[in-house]
Amino acid sequence: SRSINLAVIPGDGIGQEVVAEGLKVLAAALPQETKLETKEYDFGAKRYHATGQTLTDADLAELKAHDAILLGAIGDPSVPSGVLERGFLLKLRFAFDHFVNLRPSKLLPGVGTPLAGSPDIDFVVVREGTEGPYTGNGGAIRTGTPAEVATEVSLNTAYGIERVVRDAYARAQARPRKKLTLVHKNNVLVHAGGLWTRIFQEVGREYPEVTTDYLHVDATMIFLVTQPERFDVIVTDNLFGDIVTDLAAAVSGGIGVAASGNINPSGEFPSMFEPVHGSAPDIAGQSKADPTATVLSVALLLRHLGYDAEADRIDAAVRTDLAERAGGPARSTVEIGDALAARVAG
Amino acid sequence: SRSINLAVIPGDGIGQEVVAEGLKVLAAALPQETKLETKEYDFGAKRYHATGQTLTDADLAELKAHDAILLGAIGDPSVPSGVLERGFLLKLRFAFDHFVNLRPSKLLPGVGTPLAGSPDIDFVVVREGTEGPYTGNGGAIRTGTPAEVATEVSLNTAYGIERVVRDAYARAQARPRKKLTLVHKNNVLVHAGGLWTRIFQEVGREYPEVTTDYLHVDATMIFLVTQPERFDVIVTDNLFGDIVTDLAAAVSGGIGVAASGNINPSGEFPSMFEPVHGSAPDIAGQSKADPTATVLSVALLLRHLGYDAEADRIDAAVRTDLAERAGGPARSTVEIGDALAARVAG
Ligand SMILES: CC(C)[C@H](C(=O)O)[C@@H](O)C(=O)O
Ligand SMILES: CC(C)[C@H](C(=O)O)[C@@H](O)C(=O)O
Repeated sequence: SRSINLAVIPGDGIGQEVVAEGLKVLAAALPQETKLETKEYDFGAKRYHATGQTLTDADLAELKAHDAILLGAIGDPSVPSGVLERGFLLKLRFAFDHFVNLRPSKLLPGVGTPLAGSPDIDFVVVREGTEGPYTGNGGAIRTGTPAEVATEVSLNTAYGIERVVRDAYARAQARPRKKLTLVHKNNVLVHAGGLWTRIFQEVGREYPEVTTDYLHVDATMIFLVTQPERFDVIVTDNLFGDIVTDLAAAVSGGIGVAASGNINPSGEFPSMFEPVHGSAPDIAGQSKADPTATVLSVALLLRHLGYDAEADRIDAAVRTDLAERAGGPARSTVEIGDALAARVAG
Repeated sequence: SRSINLAVIPGDGIGQEVVAEGLKVLAAALPQETKLETKEYDFGAKRYHATGQTLTDADLAELKAHDAILLGAIGDPSVPSGVLERGFLLKLRFAFDHFVNLRPSKLLPGVGTPLAGSPDIDFVVVREGTEGPYTGNGGAIRTGTPAEVATEVSLNTAYGIERVVRDAYARAQARPRKKLTLVHKNNVLVHAGGLWTRIFQEVGREYPEVTTDYLHVDATMIFLVTQPERFDVIVTDNLFGDIVTDLAAAVSGGIGVAASGNINPSGEFPSMFEPVHGSAPDIAGQSKADPTATVLSVALLLRHLGYDAEADRIDAAVRTDLAERAGGPARSTVEIGDALAARVAG
């Protein structure tokens, strides 16, 4: 009999509501012999206001002792923009070396898309999570004056790129179409782009069955709305990945159903799973939020921990639920969670 | 009587074909008393292969003597990726201080969009053109080894941001909705994002009638496909502008109709007008390319030089042509150009 020791961080706004449903479905999915232990942490706006802290070294040490982390959403209008994003979310991703930011995009039956027709969307983005323009490197001089100069430095290492590119190849290899697209802007960002391109080609030699191609990030925008079927697995840097995955989520059903994993494949640190959406303070506390993205993130979490059959059951439940939901009356956060849990258990 | 002294750079691939039609429509639009002098330059792949050069100081001095530049497209598979982009296109934009990269997005009647429904799209992106991650700043050490580190530095100055932000406010002020959106990622890129945000707010005090808002670049992706009506004028940095404008073009009729201007508002250097599309070598020489984007770029050119009535006539001709074209048989590049020229002249 196995056990899962889970750190739960509901966070702010709708985070609380969607995480409750995620946990409900998780409990329903697990085999009876698996012991689920959860510990809740109050990171986010409340702790920040109470203590001025976002995530301390002691917090990190405590979180590290878990098998995985389930996160709702962090962010509140009462906290200056960027403080919680950098002080909590990015700090955690970097501290726990979450170099694979995994974001699947699959347009499920019954789910609306802003695109015309019924595009066949089923791809996954492997976004690098620990480098690029996200390192906080840069600065400013003559701040606040008309002579201010500000820089942002994108840091890219062969070490960091190789490991995420290898992960992406392995994922492409395991999928029926076996296709991997590198997205960058190597005609302008020649230093970083050259390094990404070289490593992409080098690692590719180890995966002769995987078909590869390269797209500039700007051209990727066009294909994502005109021909999303062309994508199978995309690998890209931290900032391009941030941009590409929001568009990918938008065309494949919206952020209400977009799941993500912040993965440390070596297992040295716990991986963290979270919906792509934010804390949506405008609808918080009204049981209006769709918990589906969190439930799908729970499926990614289970898959990461080796509970493939359980993850499959959750995915199937979501699929059926979304198809039946189409055209029906709006349901509350709790109603959707209950329905999914019942399906998964049944 | 006035005169226009125009440098014409057809470039590679379909550039030749679309520029020929652009010039045809330009000639048809100009009042008889306006003298149009054009000089053609062979920049692009051919010159690169013949001389190894992309754009010399002597070339720049010669180009500077013109009132404006009309560019088709630069780029060919026979030239390594990036060489012409940086050696010609970016070099010219930087040398001629084209700090306003103007890209209007308007979904015209009869034009297809990948979006469902019939969204009302009519906005313009003011993309900064001389700073950000496009300066070539950065480098690599231990190149080609497993220990390589590569950087890209985004350079942002109060000087450079203020002038483009002021231009964007003036454009917003002149439009009926008077709305300006700053797009950045200031929760992560705090140094550059802080500078953009500060200047956006400061300059905004001079334009009390303009409504402003701020969007992260990732959220912008979502709104561009779910709610493109929300945008009126967008101002953003060089790289975000590159990404946003390709998506904007895709949702508002595709790159076949996307025009752009690389503008030096002070008039110290000639401004350059070009379709957003590339040289499309796969369809070059087959009269398949749509010259509409180039024709609309000619309208931007005329507007820049003060020929507003003539620009209006071109825009109207394109509008009627696109509406009539819908559902009809495919026409050749020359046929579309002829039809537009006839309408503009008539
Ligand atoms: C909140 C923000 C820092 C974060 C990011 O940019 O990575 C978010 O947009 C995401 O995609 O998870
Ligand atoms: C060709 C390339 C250098 C260029 C850019 O990135 O600016 C193009 O994508 C554009 O948008 O005009």
